[in-house]
Amino acid sequence: MLRVFQRTSRLRRAPRCLCIQNTAASTVLLVPADFQSPLLIWGSAQFVVFSHRLHDKTDGVRPSPAAAPERRPFSRLSVEDLAFFRKILPGRTITDPDLVESSNVDWLKSVRGSSEVLLRPRTTKEVSQILSYCNSHNLAVNPQGGNTGLVGGSVPVYDEIILSTSLMNDIISFDNVSGILTCRAGCVLENLSLFLEERDHIMPLDLGAKGSCQIGGNVATNAGGLRLLRYGSLHGTVLGLEVVLADGRVLDCLATLRKDNTGYDLKQLFIGSEGTLGVITAVSILCPRKPKSVNVVFLGCETFEQLLKAFQLCRGMLGEILSAFEFLDSECMRLLKTHLKLSNPISDCPFYIVIETSGSDPSHDAQKLHNFLEEAMTSLLVTDGTVATEESKIKALWSMRERVTEALTHDGFNYKYDISLPVERIYQLVTDTREHLGNRAKSVVGYGHVGDGNLHLNITSPAKDPALLAAIEPFVYEWAARYHGSISAEHGLGLKKRNYIYYSKSSQAVALMTHIKALLDPKGILNPYKTLPDHLK
Amino acid sequence: MLRVFQRTSRLRRAPRCLCIQNTAASTVLLVPADFQSPLLIWGSAQFVVFSHRLHDKTDGVRPSPAAAPERRPFSRLSVEDLAFFRKILPGRTITDPDLVESSNVDWLKSVRGSSEVLLRPRTTKEVSQILSYCNSHNLAVNPQGGNTGLVGGSVPVYDEIILSTSLMNDIISFDNVSGILTCRAGCVLENLSLFLEERDHIMPLDLGAKGSCQIGGNVATNAGGLRLLRYGSLHGTVLGLEVVLADGRVLDCLATLRKDNTGYDLKQLFIGSEGTLGVITAVSILCPRKPKSVNVVFLGCETFEQLLKAFQLCRGMLGEILSAFEFLDSECMRLLKTHLKLSNPISDCPFYIVIETSGSDPSHDAQKLHNFLEEAMTSLLVTDGTVATEESKIKALWSMRERVTEALTHDGFNYKYDISLPVERIYQLVTDTREHLGNRAKSVVGYGHVGDGNLHLNITSPAKDPALLAAIEPFVYEWAARYHGSISAEHGLGLKKRNYIYYSKSSQAVALMTHIKALLDPKGILNPYKTLPDHLK
Repeated sequence: MLRVFQRTSRLRRAPRCLCIQNTAASTVLLVPADFQSPLLIWGSAQFVVFSHRLHDKTDGVRPSPAAAPERRPFSRLSVEDLAFFRKILPGRTITDPDLVESSNVDWLKSVRGSSEVLLRPRTTKEVSQILSYCNSHNLAVNPQGGNTGLVGGSVPVYDEIILSTSLMNDIISFDNVSGILTCRAGCVLENLSLFLEERDHIMPLDLGAKGSCQIGGNVATNAGGLRLLRYGSLHGTVLGLEVVLADGRVLDCLATLRKDNTGYDLKQLFIGSEGTLGVITAVSILCPRKPKSVNVVFLGCETFEQLLKAFQLCRGMLGEILSAFEFLDSECMRLLKTHLKLSNPISDCPFYIVIETSGSDPSHDAQKLHNFLEEAMTSLLVTDGTVATEESKIKALWSMRERVTEALTHDGFNYKYDISLPVERIYQLVTDTREHLGNRAKSVVGYGHVGDGNLHLNITSPAKDPALLAAIEPFVYEWAARYHGSISAEHGLGLKKRNYIYYSKSSQAVALMTHIKALLDPKGILNPYKTLPDHLK
Repeated sequence: MLRVFQRTSRLRRAPRCLCIQNTAASTVLLVPADFQSPLLIWGSAQFVVFSHRLHDKTDGVRPSPAAAPERRPFSRLSVEDLAFFRKILPGRTITDPDLVESSNVDWLKSVRGSSEVLLRPRTTKEVSQILSYCNSHNLAVNPQGGNTGLVGGSVPVYDEIILSTSLMNDIISFDNVSGILTCRAGCVLENLSLFLEERDHIMPLDLGAKGSCQIGGNVATNAGGLRLLRYGSLHGTVLGLEVVLADGRVLDCLATLRKDNTGYDLKQLFIGSEGTLGVITAVSILCPRKPKSVNVVFLGCETFEQLLKAFQLCRGMLGEILSAFEFLDSECMRLLKTHLKLSNPISDCPFYIVIETSGSDPSHDAQKLHNFLEEAMTSLLVTDGTVATEESKIKALWSMRERVTEALTHDGFNYKYDISLPVERIYQLVTDTREHLGNRAKSVVGYGHVGDGNLHLNITSPAKDPALLAAIEPFVYEWAARYHGSISAEHGLGLKKRNYIYYSKSSQAVALMTHIKALLDPKGILNPYKTLPDHLK
């Protein structure tokens, strides 16, 4: 039975929220009472959650595994707690609801918490004091960076204290010889990029959210992004971390060394743990030199098999200068034309490729690209193409790939999936889903990072459609699991996907994760309700 | 007080060993009774251990932190145990002392165990059965790959059962499109390289020991090697692992995906854990394309500052094709001339650099190298140099760097250190050590991987010299710790360096490591006496 009730703040009037709770399944998700505006939708979780308002159990719609579980028995924030925080963080203990509001809601506006306090420490010592206090007083904490996450991991679920790293934004050191940058967790990625560009280096990762995401959050979520194909994941480029553990102890693993084999590599545990094992307070990271030349090519292919062959050729002939190999299908192109009036820069094809090269010698890069294109055309792997070396044309070509998401939002209600698969399988999932859904979907499109084996599968319908959703899930997750794929390539699990973990991880692995969580955070105060499933298999 | 006694096998006559035990300090190290031959020496541990035979406490020589601690109360191998192993591994349960011998001694012949049985499973299931049995019967296990480790981590300390992965040597799959190889742990690195070369790929790591080391051991020890500068560490290139835990449970994290953010990245825990947390049974790893062109340059520099500037220039101008930047000092060159009669290919200089490039276009690589050399000479960063493109000349130039170790063995007794430091500090340690030791040392030389910030500091003396050792240690370790260096860049801690861990890791970090060990291996049966220190700070 669904029960709808209203929560109010104990300390002062909080933004009114409707708390939608399925009492049978013990799941709950907070929805703002005045939530009227059309929502940006990410994944299906959002839809199912809101469908609770529209349907009762007689509809046969089961509660979503994405919905929040019941609030755990953490303490409620007291006047004494606030007094303590104000003492150690004078002027940086924020309780004004209007100021706390933006930290309670994720940037997709899909999940909302009801925290009453936002703490803005400046130092590791302050973070340590906060966590030591919260742990001993059984207060839950939501560590927050730039709050750009897509799976509901970056905002509180209930009244967790928000611990923001925004004011911890110093660059500690940069070694121009080795390219090793050390900085505090709150540095905004774009600021780091600008700092490094002046020093002839770049960050090893680049994201759409770079203007607001923070390096601590990037590391905590193991952010992927556009440069992964070339520079690898953060598990390889992050050289050191400083982490405050749940009980306030500071774990200093902030080495600035490329090699260090003295005991277990503990920092790795925190990369991608979504703030559930500790609060990252400083990062050291290996930064590549800034490339002197960048080229972008837009190509058309007849089949996905040819596209994969072109990728293989590309890896051989472009080799060390290849920095991106992305694709979109003809359905994406149709949406770009229909909704955004973008015109196809080449002739119509079933598949399109965006290749980026970056290197240290413009003439060499141009020559390599020329040789590759000649070979790809001669061997009929690609049927048409265009090359850009000027920045404006580079941007125009990239927009064909980057604006697919925007075009999709104009096509109807979106069901979005971020799936990682062995590269030879990635388009088969689109084809199989299209066939499986038949005319129940409006559009079924595929695009993504071929180089990383990361598919963005998107399905649209004129409006929310529970029957369509039921046809998509668990079909897509089961398909991904069958081919040893990942149901979250780069976005993490957060709140929304935590209960889908078993599609990608074995029960032994998940059990071990919970043991590690219990070891590092025995009271479970750090980012509760996230990453790990509600129940073990 | 030193107590010398003799152990014999309970089941059959084992090779006779002298067990040298310092009863006061509870340390013990097994030394073969008939150990007459001159030993290959690695690090100082060896020396201190053997000095126990030569000195008693009145010499003021304290027991080495490298010496083995007392045997823990594991069960002794029984006839019933052997019957069980023979049942599940018929013909692959080896008890003939002559056959077990080579697995009891490390390849430096510096450490010897007294195991009575060598198990050679072929499948993960068999490994699981072995560990399940050993865990429930409290039998200690020494997982062993190619037994090429340098810190006494790969052989038993006492009578641990040796679990060899040698027969688990199948290649499971190779995806030519993504370059992802999946294979069992016992595959020899060189065999994998040959397999991949035929498929136009290479392994992302290369080691001197490639002819016998196994990929499982490489991952378990987080092997560095020659390609780290270019392709990064195994924490980035290993995509998946299958691991059998201490109690026999199989942890399947054998993903073949470049991106997977579903929960904690558990496989990272086992990379570099030296067999103390689980037995790696299968690996998937990302393999780069085989380069089409390789060049090697040998250069001379007047100062280390100029050498560092040359490295910086090199990173900018060679950029994506730089694959190695190594150095040796004039003392190394002197030893190469004196002991190996190698002639300096260029004029005499205080420092020498070996640069390797590898790329996809020979003419482009040659052009880049030419431009770099012109700039480096014009700006007086280097004073002389020679380039090789033919394989024989490439080998000749590389031998100037690779044969330093051999030259050192002819110079006298060796004290060897494998230190990782912020790159701008690496030669300062050599200078300071030279100054600190004055004329007490015969030679003090430095060489190593500038690109990785990894220095090989070597000190020689005409004979073993406890006073000299006392002057070196803890001076070198304290120096490394002062500049946040690592006392083991790539060799791990094993038995010999386990008690030096605090020079590189905080007490919080080491405490957490022991908790993780207790979580994964509560009875401590996996590779006991290794990696973690005997006592917590």
